[in-house]
Parts: sequence; structure tokens; C-alpha cells
Amino acid sequence: MTAKPFSFRLIATDGAARRGEIETPHGLVRTPAFMPVGTQATVKAMYPDQVRALGSDVVLGNTYHLMLRPTAERVARLGGLHRFMNWPHTILTDSGGFQVMSLAQLRKLDETGVRFQSHIDGQKYHLTPERSIEIQGLLGSDIQMQLDECIGLPAPREEAQRAMELSLRWAERSRAQFEAMGGPAKGQGLYGIVQGGDVAELRIASARALADMPFEGYSVGGLAVGEPQDVMLKMLEITTPAMPVDKPRYLMGVGTPEDILESVTRGIDQFDCVMPTRAGRHGLAYTRYGKVNLKNARHADDPRPLDETSDCPAARDYSRAYLHHLVKAGEGLAAMLLTWNNLAYYQHLMQGMRDAIEAGTFQDFRAAVKADWVRGDIAPLG
Amino acid sequence: MTAKPFSFRLIATDGAARRGEIETPHGLVRTPAFMPVGTQATVKAMYPDQVRALGSDVVLGNTYHLMLRPTAERVARLGGLHRFMNWPHTILTDSGGFQVMSLAQLRKLDETGVRFQSHIDGQKYHLTPERSIEIQGLLGSDIQMQLDECIGLPAPREEAQRAMELSLRWAERSRAQFEAMGGPAKGQGLYGIVQGGDVAELRIASARALADMPFEGYSVGGLAVGEPQDVMLKMLEITTPAMPVDKPRYLMGVGTPEDILESVTRGIDQFDCVMPTRAGRHGLAYTRYGKVNLKNARHADDPRPLDETSDCPAARDYSRAYLHHLVKAGEGLAAMLLTWNNLAYYQHLMQGMRDAIEAGTFQDFRAAVKADWVRGDIAPLG
Ligand SMILES: [Zn+2]
Ligand SMILES: [Zn+2]
Repeated sequence: MTAKPFSFRLIATDGAARRGEIETPHGLVRTPAFMPVGTQATVKAMYPDQVRALGSDVVLGNTYHLMLRPTAERVARLGGLHRFMNWPHTILTDSGGFQVMSLAQLRKLDETGVRFQSHIDGQKYHLTPERSIEIQGLLGSDIQMQLDECIGLPAPREEAQRAMELSLRWAERSRAQFEAMGGPAKGQGLYGIVQGGDVAELRIASARALADMPFEGYSVGGLAVGEPQDVMLKMLEITTPAMPVDKPRYLMGVGTPEDILESVTRGIDQFDCVMPTRAGRHGLAYTRYGKVNLKNARHADDPRPLDETSDCPAARDYSRAYLHHLVKAGEGLAAMLLTWNNLAYYQHLMQGMRDAIEAGTFQDFRAAVKADWVRGDIAPLG
Repeated sequence: MTAKPFSFRLIATDGAARRGEIETPHGLVRTPAFMPVGTQATVKAMYPDQVRALGSDVVLGNTYHLMLRPTAERVARLGGLHRFMNWPHTILTDSGGFQVMSLAQLRKLDETGVRFQSHIDGQKYHLTPERSIEIQGLLGSDIQMQLDECIGLPAPREEAQRAMELSLRWAERSRAQFEAMGGPAKGQGLYGIVQGGDVAELRIASARALADMPFEGYSVGGLAVGEPQDVMLKMLEITTPAMPVDKPRYLMGVGTPEDILESVTRGIDQFDCVMPTRAGRHGLAYTRYGKVNLKNARHADDPRPLDETSDCPAARDYSRAYLHHLVKAGEGLAAMLLTWNNLAYYQHLMQGMRDAIEAGTFQDFRAAVKADWVRGDIAPLG
């Protein structure tokens, strides 16, 4: 039996900003979408029900971590990643390549793929485009990523070109493997990844070459890797017009609320980032008035909540003094409450953008959100 | 204005086992009651709503930890411990004495109280019976404990007698301070603590001397401090008949599910213990078939949940394989799920005992629970 095909539907646009809907074997994904990161088959410090209740339609799993532990084969024997992590909604997996290059030991990249040793036990692996897709298929993820090579910025042009061209050859191999495994018939999607560093011609060439291949969606990779925000946004302005209008566009690893707002303005549909979850484990809260550092002693006697107008209990029902205490005392509830608050803020921002694009008021929304950020956090108590 | 007085109502008995109800300024406490430990103003790895939803009517706060950080004065300025930790139900605080003796540095005990240095920053403190009650009053706890001296077991008789007699003198001083602070008019309760080591005559003498003072309840202290379970239970059999029948009886720091079942059998009404919460942070699960160590590799491929008949999502909706993975990966969700499971099991056991006492079927219930423990965990997969 063939599943309903993976699809993307554009519901509305407002300037370059797009409101859409992706349909996967595990449900609808409203775009623009923020995808919380569930590295090791868990969005850290959150119950899956909570992640869902915040309006998350999709979470991200990390192929690198999962292939090492518990392994893709074990997850497959246990019925797939959705069942394993008790998340019956859409899952996107990355290819593993980015984290191999940032976390693994003794890594060596060549035309075949990348060889590395596990950071956990030193075991040797060879991650190829085919093996990455095989792993993602075993996990059963709804949205899969081609293996690519992501370089840091700044980088020499020849280096950016070499990596971009290698990524195109890997795109073809990834696609062939995805089809061999029956991904399209299962309704799953595979995304090609645009590379090209900070060189406009390379970005455009990459996007056009990928557009000629039958991907269900397209990612922009190799940004938010050290370059200033204006370079990233310029690259998006150049790249998105060269990407198919009828496919979802995913900016990988981005970013701050402002990065996301500005990228939606430039036609991006999907985002993932560890910032809201990682910040939550380090005493940092995102609110509509900016970032609040709860380690700071100014909060020790402050009876006010993070944001009394929020509908998230973590933002509304606990004083800054209490959150400060939990952070200082190293209590797990600090990470639980702040991660909850942060994901609530991110998802609230996404919902605001979706509503504004549909209403045709995206620029007003964007200005209002920025005005709140400029206003900044409430003043300390007198 | 005077609050409704602290009260205890005996609803039913079955043998020595008692079903009762304590009324405090923050609600009713159904007994026998298990009180989750919220050391630093949080039941570790649990949202307060979850703790409540499991049927917890009361949580315990630790005076020693809270007096050091965030300090009782700060909590009072912020409106008291209930508001601080977002727990609008009953709170019991200990006197701080037990943890001074186990955690603080350079501690020195004399007739006045105990001097010590903070384990956090070395700051010097002098905890007296009066200061302990003052702190508990600042925290605003509903059930307060006298300062006592708790010795380890085995101990020489003279040592047990000296500590018991000192504790009686401190009981009088604690009571005077509690009344000076208006505790009774606020509807709060102060419990005297029976000491006497493992010497029957001392236990009886302590219980009788305390019964002559106007406490709202009585604790049994100095048990579960290293002695075999049969010594503890023998002490209870000797002590509880010497305690007032119309006041709640609280066995401090106990214990395993079996300790609790056997202590209820001998007339105890209240318990606290870090076991379910601490075990949850160390990969251990309590189920009706005993304790399960999720670190064990036997669970790595086991798709079965901890207990599919439980109504707790943590016990029912996640496979042992997933829990094993979370524990091995050091994920916070492991502690969150296992603590939840463990407190659910403890509170389910308490509810079972309360129902059985009311129904007059306590001995049948006790036998059935023990039979499940003897049966043990499900066999590993073949
Ligand atoms: Zn990021
Ligand atoms: Zn204990």
C-alpha cells in the first residue's frame, strides 16, 4: 500500500514571508515552523506532551547521536523513533554530517563520505550518503536530510565551491538511496541542502542544481556558522529566489528569535535550534522583552514572574526570585521551567508570524515584536 | 482573626492501622500520608502540579537547606514558602537538626543548640530550638517540628538517654517559641519528637513525657538510622501504644514501601523519605512488583513499559528500552519520568492502604501487596 504523498501547500504570502502546511505520514506541520531539537530522542527537560501542547508539530532528531546510541537498528526493532520517544507527530532527522564534524574524533572526509570515531567509546564508523539515508529510514523519520559538507565561515571561495560540489554529488546519491528504500511511497520527504559559503554565485548555482532534482523540500545549510547576521540575511535574500516556490525551505540550525523573524521575512519556512532548550539549562529565559539571565542577583528578591501575560505556567506562576533560587541551587526544576518558558516563547512567536502572514499584517507584526525587544526587560525593583 | 485550629480526626481503624484526616491552614491531609521531600523548595525533577495530581496532600521542606539558601527571611519577604514554591497545599518542615548533623561542617552541639558552618559557603550559624521554630514560622509551614537530637544506631544506652532527655528539654523550649509566635492561632501544628534509641523504656518515657505537653502531633525520630528493620518495627510496637490516640503520628525519614506498609500496620500516620525521588535520579524504578534497575542492559531491547496497568504515564507510555536509553545517555527526562513513576507508586500504595483501612480489609491488602513484591518483576524477554 502506498501512503499519501509528502506534500507542501502554500496558504498565504505577505511579501516574501510564507504561510504554509506540510503533510507528512505523522501529521500536518504548520509553517513557518520552529522544530525543537530532540538530540538523543528527547527534547531535553521536557515531556513530549508539553512539547506538543506548545504548538510544536515536528521535532528534530540527531542522526549522529542516535546512530551511536541506542543505534538505528535498535530503534527500528523497537518500532521506530516515533514510538521509541513517545512522539506520534512529525519527526525530522538531520544527516549526521554536521555533528560528525563538530563532535566526533579522528574524522576524515573524502568522496565516499566521512570516517570517524564515536565520542562515546571510540568505535569506528563510516558515514556515507547511503548509510545516512539508511539510518534515517530505520529511525522512520518523516523528513530526512541528504548528507552534505558544511564548512565554517569565513572560508576561501575554492573551499566553499569544493564543498558545495561535493554536496551536490552526495545529494544525488542520497536521493537514489531514499528511493531505493521506498521513502516516497511511505510519504516521507528528503530535503536537498544548498551550500556555497558566503559566495552568491555558488549559493545560486547550488540552489538551481538541487531544484533540478526531485526533492520534497530544500534546506539552506552552512549559515549561522560564525558569520555576522547581515551576511546570513544577504545570503538568504540571494538564495531563496533561486529555490522552488512550491517546496518547503528549511534554514538549518537557526537561531535567535531575531534571526528567525528576519529569515521568515526572507521566505524561510522551517527552523531548528538548540538555543531555547540549551539556554533553559543555563539559567537564561527568552521573553517578549528579550533575554533574562536568572543567575543575576537582581532577581533574588523579585516576586514578579517572567511574563505575567504569558499563558505558559512557567512564565506566569513562578517568581523570578524562585527561578533564581532554583538556578543557584542547581535544581533540575530550573531547567524544566526555563526550557518550558523558552519553547513557549519561540512557539508563541511562530504562531504570531503565521497569523500575521495569513492576515496580511506581517510587517506590522514584525515591527511590534522588534519594539518589544528594544523596550527590554522590566526594570529591577527599586 | 484566629484561624481554624489544627486538627486530627480519626476516620477508621483496622487493627492498629489508622485512617485519618489532618486539617491545616492549607487543606486536608489524608492519612496514612506519604510526604514527598522538597528539600530546596522543590520536589526534585517534578512540577508541583504533578506532585499534587499524584494525590500528595503535603510536601516536606528542609529547614537546614532553606535557612542557608534562599534564607527564611527572604522567603518570608516573598510571601512564604507556599507562594515561593507554588505549592498552595500543606507544607511540613523539619527542624533542621538532623541535616545539620549529617551535612554541615564543624558542628558542635550543647545545651543551647547546635553551632555549625554552612556546607555551601562556610558561614557560621547557631541553630537553637527557638531559632528553628522562628525559621519554620518565617517559612510559614503548616506542620513544624521541634529541634531534637537524633543519634545513630547502635548506640550506648547512656547516649540514647542523654539525647532523649535533651530532646525533651528542647521540646519545651520549642513549644514556648511556637506559642510566642502565634502558631496555634494561625492553625499551625507543632510536633514533639519521641527519641530513645533502641531502648524500650526510653522510648516509652519519651512518648509519655511528650504526651503531657500540648503538641498537635507526635513524631517518632531516631529510627531508620542504620538498625535492622525488625528493630525499627519492634520499637514502633512499643512506642505507638504510649502515644496519644487522638493525635497524628509521624515516622520521620521512612522509608521503603515495605517499611511504610509495616509501620502503618503498627499505627503510624505520616511518612517522608527521599527514596522515591532519589532512586528516580539514579535509574531505579519502584513498581508493584518491586524495584527495577533501568541501568541494567537487560532492558535495552525491552519494548514493555514499567507497568502497563498503572495510570501514571511514566509507568505506562514509555518502554523500558527507552528509559534505559535515557538513563545511559544521562538525559534529564530519565529523572523526570522515573521520579514521577516512583512517587506515583508510593502514592498509589498509600491510597490503597487508606481504602483498605476504611473497608476493614487492611490485612488482605497487606498480604496482596507483599505477594506482588515476592512475585518480583516480569521476566526478561526470551
Ligand atoms: Zn542554533
Ligand atoms: Zn528515608
